[in-house]
Amino acid sequence: MNRNDKPMNAFYAQSGGVTAVINASAAGVIETARRHRDRIRKVYAGRSGIIGALTEDLIDTSREPIANIRKLRHTPSGAFGSCRYKLKSLEENRREYERLIEVFSAHDIGYFFYNGGGDSADTCLKISQLSKRLGYPIQAIHVPKTVDNDLPITDNCPGFGSVAKYVAVSTREASFDVASMCKTSTKVFVLEVMGRHAGWIAAAGGLAADENTDLPVLILFPEVTFNRRRFMAEVKRMVRNYGYVSVVVSEGVRGRGGKFLSDQGLVDAFGHAQLGGVAPVIANMIKQDTGFKYHWGVADYMQRSARHIASRTDVEQAFALGRAAVELALAGRNSVMPTVKRISNRPYRWKIGSAPLGRVANVEKMMPASFISKDGFGITKRCRNYLQPLIMGEDYPPYRDGLPDYVSLRNVPVKKKLATGFRP
Amino acid sequence: MNRNDKPMNAFYAQSGGVTAVINASAAGVIETARRHRDRIRKVYAGRSGIIGALTEDLIDTSREPIANIRKLRHTPSGAFGSCRYKLKSLEENRREYERLIEVFSAHDIGYFFYNGGGDSADTCLKISQLSKRLGYPIQAIHVPKTVDNDLPITDNCPGFGSVAKYVAVSTREASFDVASMCKTSTKVFVLEVMGRHAGWIAAAGGLAADENTDLPVLILFPEVTFNRRRFMAEVKRMVRNYGYVSVVVSEGVRGRGGKFLSDQGLVDAFGHAQLGGVAPVIANMIKQDTGFKYHWGVADYMQRSARHIASRTDVEQAFALGRAAVELALAGRNSVMPTVKRISNRPYRWKIGSAPLGRVANVEKMMPASFISKDGFGITKRCRNYLQPLIMGEDYPPYRDGLPDYVSLRNVPVKKKLATGFRP
Repeated sequence: MNRNDKPMNAFYAQSGGVTAVINASAAGVIETARRHRDRIRKVYAGRSGIIGALTEDLIDTSREPIANIRKLRHTPSGAFGSCRYKLKSLEENRREYERLIEVFSAHDIGYFFYNGGGDSADTCLKISQLSKRLGYPIQAIHVPKTVDNDLPITDNCPGFGSVAKYVAVSTREASFDVASMCKTSTKVFVLEVMGRHAGWIAAAGGLAADENTDLPVLILFPEVTFNRRRFMAEVKRMVRNYGYVSVVVSEGVRGRGGKFLSDQGLVDAFGHAQLGGVAPVIANMIKQDTGFKYHWGVADYMQRSARHIASRTDVEQAFALGRAAVELALAGRNSVMPTVKRISNRPYRWKIGSAPLGRVANVEKMMPASFISKDGFGITKRCRNYLQPLIMGEDYPPYRDGLPDYVSLRNVPVKKKLATGFRP
Repeated sequence: MNRNDKPMNAFYAQSGGVTAVINASAAGVIETARRHRDRIRKVYAGRSGIIGALTEDLIDTSREPIANIRKLRHTPSGAFGSCRYKLKSLEENRREYERLIEVFSAHDIGYFFYNGGGDSADTCLKISQLSKRLGYPIQAIHVPKTVDNDLPITDNCPGFGSVAKYVAVSTREASFDVASMCKTSTKVFVLEVMGRHAGWIAAAGGLAADENTDLPVLILFPEVTFNRRRFMAEVKRMVRNYGYVSVVVSEGVRGRGGKFLSDQGLVDAFGHAQLGGVAPVIANMIKQDTGFKYHWGVADYMQRSARHIASRTDVEQAFALGRAAVELALAGRNSVMPTVKRISNRPYRWKIGSAPLGRVANVEKMMPASFISKDGFGITKRCRNYLQPLIMGEDYPPYRDGLPDYVSLRNVPVKKKLATGFRP
């Protein structure tokens, strides 16, 4: 509550790549705000993220039945739409910030909840700072979300645990498959996963094997420069010992010159440049160097939208962080991000903390070197201890006719109040 | 029971590509046989399929605790190993059949259960015929299995329903993802699925959209010659109407000359031929012709090993067909395959039937033309009515530490009795 104790509206937007659980955070924000109507009148969502604010394309979430809001908890993707749109600095583009304040002011918006990764934390911080300078102070709270798991201070980021679970489960299942056939057929399975800068997601492939399930898995991290000779020696060793091997490769793996391995300068029969993934590149190298029969898969959007196999821990944290964001706002906090604080590994216990955005924005959390095994192809015990709780528990969506029953919201627009338009 | 009413042993082998539920059929065979020890003494499994019989590399399943056998019901892949090894005709390679009979005779094997697709039905038939001629009659029962769903007479094949569910679920989830981002980012998602000859698996992508969930999905079937101009017109129309589109492409889609689209004659910077999938080919064409931003995924082994999202209908039928195979054997039947007979669609009801192997072997069931929509890019109501019951129900495996708890069997070998070896 601010502005003479008159309840204000809130603005919520989803930013960047969507995840299996970002809508659970949205549910946390909206359900919690609805329980405090005396202080937060309505939650308006930006259609397609922050662009919705710039273009005054707002969604009135109060027009959405509570049953639909509750279904957000089990629906992947961004229910209001998302975008990759990074606001420039005030010096470079003051017009954008002024426009945001203009829209917020026109719609009595006093709370700004921005659900995203590093860039959106930065935007959130700037809006809070500049809105004050422009004479329309807004409480800006960042809700963490990113499959890349690269935000600082928070123990982990909602979205990551579910991708990690998907990658671990898929690697285990595909490994069982290859093991069955390896005597006479495929000996190497290559799975490409996301992660352009950090190997968090690829690392999750290492969870496929554990003390009860012995499987040969090699990981290619973006943090480790690809060495073809050493990698092939490992592939051959694994095939010698197990009969087969699964390779989990991060899309961001690079060769000696720092060039992405996926960028092979492929041309088709007509000389057109072709963009492929890194999995076929690795697979073709294996064929050339070892002669082993291979198969490869690319998990692409499936990995981050696989709500059907989401981690229950991840869903609970995503919802809790959305709720905490509103509670922080109601407590008068500003320029802050709720975080996950890990209390213990076994049993896994966590609680909600908070971090000032000044310490979050523009800081990337890389995988610690101590998480990658000495040979560079696996995860350490320490990494396993960190990752394992994040994939714990299942949280199955309801099904209808054999398929997950995901909600598509009505997304009723808020009537525009401004005569002016805006082209982002 | 045969040979003077002395209980005989049974031989069971898994053949060809494995699935999420072939082990459920194995459980059906072994659990049922164990309940009839007076007639079937032990079930021996072939290590790595029929090759295990040829090389006298047998597994004594009676040494496996019943708890492990029960876990087969929820474990994907082939627990005893599988192979792609097609026996030649008797004229071409009499030696192989004689060797099989030699091994079966040495181990008192009177029942042959072969769990596979069209080729293994053919092998099964030949073994039954030739064993009689060679003076060692064996009851040969074929247990159907194939993700390709191309066996005749049976309404469907175990393994297919679970792949279909995986493809439908993944297409729905990825579509939700793309829908969130399409305003400013990816507009086309391409998912490559299995099916070199028939479009059954690709067709399942059409289930992602239904009367409650309106999603734009285009399917590229191997049955429909790829027409780039018409396809691009559809892509553009969908993007115009929905803002995005998902494309499910069968690996077997071909261009006008009958050439696989995946075979683009790609070469890398060093002039080495590169084998890629069809998804990147389609994606690159879309980029060239429409300029739309794209993403692509390749489901590869993930789709057929995804026991975590198996269809309950599929699991139940796989188990029931394994059980029925033993019951047919006990009833004195020979050269036969248990089948699924559909009784009704809504509610879905089915029962077990049987078909003589002479009518199964070497017959491929293609998708009826009436299952593909007139424009060639979708499924008809009739196809939906056929497919929908096959993905019904979930049958989650148990989890341990956040991962499915799949069993790896002990696979205790049977002592060899023959002095002779065999090189397949």
